[in-house]
This record gives sequence, C-alpha cells and structure tokens, in this order.
Amino acid sequence: MSEERATATGFPGPRVGIVGGGQLARMLAEAATPLGIHVRVLAATEGECAGEVVPDVVIGSPDDAEALRSFAATVDVLTFDHENVDHDALVQIERDGTPVRPGIATLRFADKAHQRREFAAAGLPVPPFVVIDPVRDLDHLSVADGFAARYGEMTNDGLIVLKASRGGYDGRGVWMLGRSELAAFLAAYRGAPLVLEPKLALERELAVLVARRPSGQIVTWPVVETIQVDGMCDEALLPAPVDVTLAAEAERIGRAVAITVDAVGVFAVELFVSDGQVLINEIAPRVHNSGHVTIEGSMTSQFSQHLRAVLDWPLGPTDSVAPAASMTNVVGDDADDPRDRQHLALAASPAAQLHLYGKAPRPARKIGHVTVLGTSLESCRAEARAAVDALIGGSGDDGVQGSSDG
Amino acid sequence: MSEERATATGFPGPRVGIVGGGQLARMLAEAATPLGIHVRVLAATEGECAGEVVPDVVIGSPDDAEALRSFAATVDVLTFDHENVDHDALVQIERDGTPVRPGIATLRFADKAHQRREFAAAGLPVPPFVVIDPVRDLDHLSVADGFAARYGEMTNDGLIVLKASRGGYDGRGVWMLGRSELAAFLAAYRGAPLVLEPKLALERELAVLVARRPSGQIVTWPVVETIQVDGMCDEALLPAPVDVTLAAEAERIGRAVAITVDAVGVFAVELFVSDGQVLINEIAPRVHNSGHVTIEGSMTSQFSQHLRAVLDWPLGPTDSVAPAASMTNVVGDDADDPRDRQHLALAASPAAQLHLYGKAPRPARKIGHVTVLGTSLESCRAEARAAVDALIGGSGDDGVQGSSDG
Repeated sequence: MSEERATATGFPGPRVGIVGGGQLARMLAEAATPLGIHVRVLAATEGECAGEVVPDVVIGSPDDAEALRSFAATVDVLTFDHENVDHDALVQIERDGTPVRPGIATLRFADKAHQRREFAAAGLPVPPFVVIDPVRDLDHLSVADGFAARYGEMTNDGLIVLKASRGGYDGRGVWMLGRSELAAFLAAYRGAPLVLEPKLALERELAVLVARRPSGQIVTWPVVETIQVDGMCDEALLPAPVDVTLAAEAERIGRAVAITVDAVGVFAVELFVSDGQVLINEIAPRVHNSGHVTIEGSMTSQFSQHLRAVLDWPLGPTDSVAPAASMTNVVGDDADDPRDRQHLALAASPAAQLHLYGKAPRPARKIGHVTVLGTSLESCRAEARAAVDALIGGSGDDGVQGSSDG
Repeated sequence: MSEERATATGFPGPRVGIVGGGQLARMLAEAATPLGIHVRVLAATEGECAGEVVPDVVIGSPDDAEALRSFAATVDVLTFDHENVDHDALVQIERDGTPVRPGIATLRFADKAHQRREFAAAGLPVPPFVVIDPVRDLDHLSVADGFAARYGEMTNDGLIVLKASRGGYDGRGVWMLGRSELAAFLAAYRGAPLVLEPKLALERELAVLVARRPSGQIVTWPVVETIQVDGMCDEALLPAPVDVTLAAEAERIGRAVAITVDAVGVFAVELFVSDGQVLINEIAPRVHNSGHVTIEGSMTSQFSQHLRAVLDWPLGPTDSVAPAASMTNVVGDDADDPRDRQHLALAASPAAQLHLYGKAPRPARKIGHVTVLGTSLESCRAEARAAVDALIGGSGDDGVQGSSDG
C-alpha cells in the first residue's frame, strides 16, 4: 500500500469538521492528532488561530448556509468551536446526511432565556428569573420593575443582573443595575431579549463538565471551582474544594442537564453556590474554559472526550491524575507577547504546562492558559500564577490581569 | 495589532526546524503547539506522516546540502527526526548562524562503532566488542574469528552478534552467527563497518532518557524497561521494575553519557542488564521509542523537553504522574487499518491513550503506540495490549505483532 496524505477525499479514518477556528478548534485538533482523527476547520478568515496548526482549513462564514453545507459534505461529523451558526443550514445538513453534534436542539440552549425556561420547566434548580424583550414587549419595564422590587432585597446591594440572552461572553452582555436605573437602560437597549436575576450573594462558583455520546453513555468529571475576575473565568481548580454532598449535587445536576438538553459531546454547566444551594447559572453546549484543566489533570481531557463522543466512541475515564490541578488563564494586555516569554514562565515555574493559542495580545483577550499539577490547590495556584505573570510581563501597574488574586 | 498567521517570515516567537517528517517530527509538533513554538518540517516527500498535522512543510532531501542550508536559514534552531543527514551541510549551517541541536559531534554517535570506542575510552560500561571493516580491512576475518573464539563461550549458544555501525534500526542490520558461519557471511558483506559483541545472556533491557540544555542543565527520567520482539521495541514500562541500586546506576550512566557525547536535547541510552551489571547497548541521539510513555506518564514528556532543551529553556520535572505506565507499539500488518478501529480499542480499554502516526499499515512497520496509566505494570500492560490487539484486528493467526507477549 502506498503512503497516503490527508486530502479532501483520501484520508483514511474519521474526519471531524469543526465550525470556527478559535482556540477551542485548535485544542480539539491537538487532541485529534494522536487519535488518528482528521480535522478540517471552517474558519471565517485566514487569521483564525487554529490555522497555524491545522493544515486542512476551509475559509467560509458560519452564517453562509451554502459554505456550511459544502463544508459538511466533506466530513463524517460536524461539530463546533462556537455556536454563532446558521441553524437553518444545520437542519439541511442533517437532512443531507452529515450528523451535527451537538444537535440543533442542544445548540438552541446557547440562548440564555431558552436555558432558564427549559431548566425551570424540568425542575432543575435555577435562580429566580424573568425574561423580557425590551424591543418587542410593551410591558417590559413594568415586568422588570416588579422583578427588581421583589428580588432586589435578596442581595446586599439591591442590584439586579441583566444578561443578554444571545451574543454575550466573558462578561460582555451582562449589566448590574439598581431598580432606579432600569428605565433609562431599557429605553436605550436594542439587543436580544434579557434574562433578569437577582445579584445573588455567592459562596463560590462551580462548573461540572459532562460528556454524552449519542448511544447514551454519560460521564462527568469531578466538579471544578471557577474563579471569575471582571466576569471572565480567571482560574479553574480541580477538584473544587467542596464537601462531597455539594460535589455530588453538582454532578447530579450535570447528568440531569445532559438529558434535558439532549446533549452530544462535551458541555459545561456553570453553577452558583448561594446560601448552601447549587443553582444553574448557565450552560455552554461545547468544550469550555473551565475544562482546560482536564488536558493534563484528567485521565481523559475534555477535548479527546468530545471527539470520542461526537464519533459515538466509548468514553474515557475522568479520574484526576493528581491530587490537585489548577488552571489560570493568560489574558492579553498592552504588554509583551507571551510567545517570546515562555522561558521566563518556565524559569518561574518549571512544572507549568503552557498553552498559548497563537493569538496576539489585546486587552481582555484570552490568549492562553497555564496548568500546574501538584499535591495542593494553593501551591498549584501559586505556580500557575507565577508562570502567567512571567508570560504577560509588563510593568505591573497597568491593569495586568490576575495579579489581584491572593 | 492585527491578527497574524504563521508564515515563512511572520511568526512571532520561536521557530524550530525539524529535519525529517516521520512520527518523531509529528509528536514534536504535537508538543510544540501548546508551547507556542512554530514548527517547520523538512520532509523528503509529500507523503511523510508529519505533513498531515503540520501546515508548514518544506519538501527537500536531507542529503541535499543546499536544501538543508536554505531550510535552516528560516528557523531559529535546527533539530532532527532522524540522523541520516549531510554532516558537512550541518557544519556550514552552524557557520551561517543557525544552531544545530544536537550538534554534529553528538550526531556522530549515531555510528555504533564510534559509540563503542568513545564510551569504552571514557570508562563507561560496554559489552566486550571489536570493530571490523570487511570492505577495507585485510585482517577482518582473523579478528572476527579471534573474537568469536574468545567470547563465544560467554553465551549459552556460542553466537556472536554483528551490528552494522550505520543504517540499522528496529532489528535491521543485526545478525547473530556462530563462529563457523563468520567466513561466508563476511565474504559476502558489503556494508558499513561492523561491531561484534558476544550474544550476552540478558536479564532485561532498560532505557534511560536524558535531556540536556546547552547551558548545562541535565535531567533524567526514571529508568524504563524495554521489551523487544524480533529486535524491535515492543513495550516500555515506566518505571522499570528494578531495585533502586540498578535504577541509580542506569541514571548515573545516562548523565555520564550526556557529558561524553556533549548532548543537547533529549537522547536515549539503551542498556543491557547482564549478570547483574548494567552495560550500554547503544544510544539514540534524539527522542526515542522508549520515551513515548512519557507523553502521558511523566510531568514533562520527552517531546516537550526536547523542544525546551534545544531552545535552551529551563527543563521540566520528570516525575511520573502515576504509579505505573506501560506503552505498547502498534506494528503494521496485512490486516486492518487501525485508523478505522479506534472505537474497538477504546471499547477494549477505555483508559487507553491511542497514538496513531498517520501511516498505512505494512508488516513490521511501527504505525502507532498505546499508553495506559494505572497502579500496576501488569494491569497497564494487559490493557495496552488489549487496545493494540483491537487496533490491529486480523485473524490472529498470521503473525500479528505482539500477541506473543505474556
């Protein structure tokens, strides 16, 4: 048999198509290589960061139904780096015969209003909420005001949280307002419907990662604690330092969500712990920042597991490989490019596992992460933070991300 | 700053050029991606397996001095997938200003005759040996006969091992002959000089992986036991089940070899244990099959470490992440293509870490490996073997590699 090369038509073995060429696509490709899975990426532009390490990139818009369909026709299964995709095209792609995983019903859960309504209807624990549409509902202000009147008192500072149901990420599309500020904000607002909830007093935030394959197998990883800075995930700690009852409740919720959203692949359930109760904050129907710690920290990483799940292969064990693991994000800045500073990070923390995404630094842009395995969360956190600080460099007085962490 | 893409000139951060596009280049590239290191591969043909997963491949022969020089001029450091390279060109490349790591003096140790002479001269433990050149030495037969007369009795069956000093691998270029067979063999032999040694009674074979950076830091991994089938590495066990004295002696030899060969990067020292003594069999001046188990089994894999070493970055810890880890090679056959059978392997061993190299199966061709982490070497070996058997498939009666292992 002659040596063959990956081509559009000739690759032996499974071909996974990924819509979007960001860091999630890049890390999925890293996981695909050893598994002998061929990855093809649909990227909107030449510059998306997966293209640096994936030879097989097709340029096309995820909003272009024809581009999506012709891309999907060349792969065995279609999956996602992000959910901003033409859903009608996905319906057609499934009719054409290429499985879309997660499916369209699951992707719809990227809408935060849809999530809240469906989870509440399924009896899953969610914060008090109401959905308003300032653009189309005539009574939106009275509904919002009534909600603020009723729930503002649940919080120390009387604030209500407003979340855009679509399009927000990393703290964007989230506002915290007092009851008296609602009218002016809503009068000016022109975006997607809003989910309102009280600004709860949080003991901590957790995330449970879940994988499900089409034939039904479900696995969860040990629950992770996430630490947010300015609405953006800054650290993830594996395992979360919580008691077994709370951890079990988080995993139970994760499994119940898998059924409710009819999940295929890996997804993350972000959880609030408030007043001793575990409540669902939101889900991300895909691999997630809170799961990057599984790359080194777990017997099976979220990325390998996602590929196994969307191909309906047997799922892998999710046990941790070390007593403690901590991940810290590398957030861009005006300072130095981390891609010239790895040696400094490794000098600061020789055990640091660096992950740089091939993205240029910009303020508030996630451009990498660092994971450290060890015997205590505190020492792992300190080592990861030291590596991140060395990667970012800068003068330290211009708002370097993460230096606020104790 | 605008988004940028890897190009010949524009990549921000370190660029490592790898001569050769086989599985070692492929796994180096896998390790380079998260570190934010750009990899450029010089491949002899379009079909070399690293090309499936590395976008930046230049086609050119490693025997073509001009191809090597122009390739080297575009990277920050030059390293190797294999040692079959024009050494004169490497001298010129260093003069041109691109570091060659490992250096030319180290690459010369790929010659088995050179190894034996230098190690013996340095007082390192090697088996009894003699080097003959049947093509150029008039007295080669009498030297060989005298060696066989003296050392044939050291072995149970009176055999002498003859090894081609250059060009052999995976059992090729090695012959075992009785004293009476030498004359006919040598009369017909037309290859490189031969190293002769007694066929020692081996208790086991070990390998010690060593990394050294130009500024001097040396680290070793815990010693590995290698199990050979038909002269080819079949399994690697981490850690080798040997007593601490033997393990310490192996690591001591590894460090001494690093100095003797003036190593830069990762290299492997293959060792015999015979009559309670540790003897150097041979070294490979690069990442090595015996070290694939470090990808999941160690805090720092041999591939990440090699990149760190050739860039003169601080080296990482080499501690094991599990009490036991076992790697089994996937060797090609006439049977099925493993790239269609991953689901069967994962059903047989859900914890198996599959590594397929993008190579079509052929008899006696290494096309992948499987690693399993766990609490006992025996259970890891059994799980890895089950996964490999499922990957290879076939009828089981046509010489499937590895099924002979107990």
